Amino acid sequence: MTALSIRDIAEVVKGRLEGPETLEIIGAAGLEEATGQEISFFHNMKYVDSLKTTKAGAVLIPEKTNGTELSKDKTWVRVANPQWAFAQVLSILYPNRQNPPIPGVHGKAIVDPTAKIETGARIGALAVIEAGAVIGADSVIYPSVYIGARSRVGAGSIIYPHVVLREDTEVGARAIIHAGTVIGADGYGFVTQQGRHHKIPQVGKVVIEDDVEIGANVTIDRATTGETRIGAGTKIDNLVHIAHNVHIGRDCLIVAQVGVSGSTTVGNRVTLAGQVGVIGHLTIGDGAIIAAQSGIMNDVAPGEVLFGSPARPHREAMKLQAVFGKLPDMYDTLRQLKKKILP
Amino acid sequence: MTALSIRDIAEVVKGRLEGPETLEIIGAAGLEEATGQEISFFHNMKYVDSLKTTKAGAVLIPEKTNGTELSKDKTWVRVANPQWAFAQVLSILYPNRQNPPIPGVHGKAIVDPTAKIETGARIGALAVIEAGAVIGADSVIYPSVYIGARSRVGAGSIIYPHVVLREDTEVGARAIIHAGTVIGADGYGFVTQQGRHHKIPQVGKVVIEDDVEIGANVTIDRATTGETRIGAGTKIDNLVHIAHNVHIGRDCLIVAQVGVSGSTTVGNRVTLAGQVGVIGHLTIGDGAIIAAQSGIMNDVAPGEVLFGSPARPHREAMKLQAVFGKLPDMYDTLRQLKKKILP
Amino acid sequence: MTALSIRDIAEVVKGRLEGPETLEIIGAAGLEEATGQEISFFHNMKYVDSLKTTKAGAVLIPEKTNGTELSKDKTWVRVANPQWAFAQVLSILYPNRQNPPIPGVHGKAIVDPTAKIETGARIGALAVIEAGAVIGADSVIYPSVYIGARSRVGAGSIIYPHVVLREDTEVGARAIIHAGTVIGADGYGFVTQQGRHHKIPQVGKVVIEDDVEIGANVTIDRATTGETRIGAGTKIDNLVHIAHNVHIGRDCLIVAQVGVSGSTTVGNRVTLAGQVGVIGHLTIGDGAIIAAQSGIMNDVAPGEVLFGSPARPHREAMKLQAVFGKLPDMYDTLRQLKKKILP
Repeated sequence: MTALSIRDIAEVVKGRLEGPETLEIIGAAGLEEATGQEISFFHNMKYVDSLKTTKAGAVLIPEKTNGTELSKDKTWVRVANPQWAFAQVLSILYPNRQNPPIPGVHGKAIVDPTAKIETGARIGALAVIEAGAVIGADSVIYPSVYIGARSRVGAGSIIYPHVVLREDTEVGARAIIHAGTVIGADGYGFVTQQGRHHKIPQVGKVVIEDDVEIGANVTIDRATTGETRIGAGTKIDNLVHIAHNVHIGRDCLIVAQVGVSGSTTVGNRVTLAGQVGVIGHLTIGDGAIIAAQSGIMNDVAPGEVLFGSPARPHREAMKLQAVFGKLPDMYDTLRQLKKKILP
Repeated sequence: MTALSIRDIAEVVKGRLEGPETLEIIGAAGLEEATGQEISFFHNMKYVDSLKTTKAGAVLIPEKTNGTELSKDKTWVRVANPQWAFAQVLSILYPNRQNPPIPGVHGKAIVDPTAKIETGARIGALAVIEAGAVIGADSVIYPSVYIGARSRVGAGSIIYPHVVLREDTEVGARAIIHAGTVIGADGYGFVTQQGRHHKIPQVGKVVIEDDVEIGANVTIDRATTGETRIGAGTKIDNLVHIAHNVHIGRDCLIVAQVGVSGSTTVGNRVTLAGQVGVIGHLTIGDGAIIAAQSGIMNDVAPGEVLFGSPARPHREAMKLQAVFGKLPDMYDTLRQLKKKILP
Repeated sequence: MTALSIRDIAEVVKGRLEGPETLEIIGAAGLEEATGQEISFFHNMKYVDSLKTTKAGAVLIPEKTNGTELSKDKTWVRVANPQWAFAQVLSILYPNRQNPPIPGVHGKAIVDPTAKIETGARIGALAVIEAGAVIGADSVIYPSVYIGARSRVGAGSIIYPHVVLREDTEVGARAIIHAGTVIGADGYGFVTQQGRHHKIPQVGKVVIEDDVEIGANVTIDRATTGETRIGAGTKIDNLVHIAHNVHIGRDCLIVAQVGVSGSTTVGNRVTLAGQVGVIGHLTIGDGAIIAAQSGIMNDVAPGEVLFGSPARPHREAMKLQAVFGKLPDMYDTLRQLKKKILP
């Protein structure tokens, strides 16, 4: 944590200041937690009450926020996108506290002589780098990571402790993989003969493209043949399961505990909210949004918004839920009608 | 496993003996598995059939159990709470079999010179303790645990193999964290600009209070700013996901595979049953009980009991499910009525 | 990857060749990805369009496939079970690429002197093998695995990196356990006194029988007393949770993210599809099939096929879903009828 003047902050975020301009900022917090020397942000009318009562010394607000709502004793910073500005402020207020390994290979790491460690890469203690692996320039391999044979990590990527990349996994540049995640375990593929399940060798691989972030304790299985692929810019939350031969497009949001079954193709900019399940061999179109806990059993057209298990169009699903609540009344009415009309 | 006389056991659990008092007990088991030299317990009328047929040599029973149901050839131990008594018996019958590391720092552990290891703490082989971390007195750090920079583990806590505590994580006293769990990974926070998702730095931390137990392969994310907090005495099962800035109260039960989204506040003594999902920015009141697989999309009042996805009051949800089963009949009746009445 | 003549392949899979017999095969892939020197397979009419357009040089097809559908410029290999044949082809086309540790104990592994490592076993770097553990002949313990005190791994089993077997765990022969999985963590057992939850010691164990495969980041808890058991030949996918004292039968398929609560008994050849939840103390009969995301709250008879949360017979559940979609229409009709008939 460092201290910054509110003027410096305004300059960084290209904001317009209103109110006291001499404030010194020593931290950042949410509207409800922030104190007088901290900066906060406001981006959603849902939190307007918190905006009115916040104790923050300064607040990043949308350019067009109504001035009459703003108390005079605080510093307001008008910006195009307060959340984006807040992200920028966080990165300058809180320089890296993560204590990554120092550049080079830690004396207690175990690196196969045929592995290639590029310039500036950091390999932590007890990391295991197998034969033929390539660790890209300026990437960070935290302690106790396992990088399998011939796997590749692109430049500037960060692999947190206890991640496992099985053999032949490819990770692009500037990727982030959080602790405990397993990439490239065998897909769940069996052929059943007379009631017994026999393993289908899983000889494909996993490709993680550039700028992907993957949460903690996620599992992404290698393909049976060919590849399982996560498109550039996609962000995956914790405890997600991506099965063999799944292809996820670019810039998707895949929230915690989602499961996507084998050979399904997910388009670009798709959102799968928490605990969604998608069965295998489906196609989810670009820009589709699937609400939390939904179960997808059929292809989804681009842009569709679905909810429910099994999922239906969101509007329909919400209406069905509303009528569903009236079922007991409907049942009673129907009984009365039946008594009166039917023999 | 040690052997104990039934009289010694009765004394420990403050129980009243009925039947043979000379029995020697060499183990403990459920009613259906227990054998003649083992002790079992009975606490729920649902299992009364097992009580009648059990082969256990002795059974812990509620004080007021009807004597006529009890065969004369067994030893009965009347106690206030048989389950509690059974827990006590287990701890004396089965002294620690877990072979924790010996006190002190294992020669193959990697401990930063600025870390502080307090008296009686045990640090296993291949554990990595980063700069400024503090490991409390008499705590146990199993092999291959990762403790990030400046993280603290309170006195008497047990951290099982392959747990990852990222930097600045605080764990209280007498906490238990099971293998593979990741605490303090970055929250899932992004700001989207022109279809691309940009990381919001996650500079907050996680605080785990005293007497918390956390299952295996759980993920608890660090806060964006401020803290994610798990209240004292709360027990979390395996594969649970707790997102950034969530606050969980005291003495909650959070069962396997539950997911709680960002910034939600859960009160004290709340039960979230298996696979429940809770969306973000909600408040769940004290003592609420959410049944398995439910989806919580709105605030929950204290003491509410909910079920369903989306969740409704439990009684209503069960009634709806019952009427739901009659839908096809209702549909047929309605068609007949319509045919008869409407033009 | 090696190259094989199509005649050699036909011999291995006991197939009958049709079309060019001089083809050399250098790889295998799905129908849509395969190229001219690759072999694919066709086993399901759902993919007949892909069969017609595939660029594969050779395709494994069911014996009775209609010859008129087959183009003359490709090599067809008629076999009894194309999927099974494909699995065989994969294992000969792709010799092991996994670079397991070499036989013997790696110099950087930490093996207690009382542990027993049998002939041909491979113990990777940074594996920790505790006192009294037994590692069976020809088994493979990848780097950074933790094998607790007195645990046993049977002959020919493969334990991938970062797996944790807590003390007294038994794994049979030819088992495969994927990375990050935790077996034998304490069951989730507490007794509540005056609102506080007290731990019930979990002194039982886990037994994994022969030929079981367990996915990545799975959790299987030890029993309170007695054992949690996974029957021979059962295949478990990623991120599954199996609670204490659960007994799973033989040759089951337990798909990703399933959760089975404590003391439930699952029969043989049961399928639990993705994200299914099963509450505790139930019995699921042999051969039952539970569709994805279902919630099981009652015993299931052998052979039953269920769907929904709470689950109902699959046919009934599908019918209910169909009628459910008509609810708003039903509601409107009912209102009209009511207006017309009831006072």
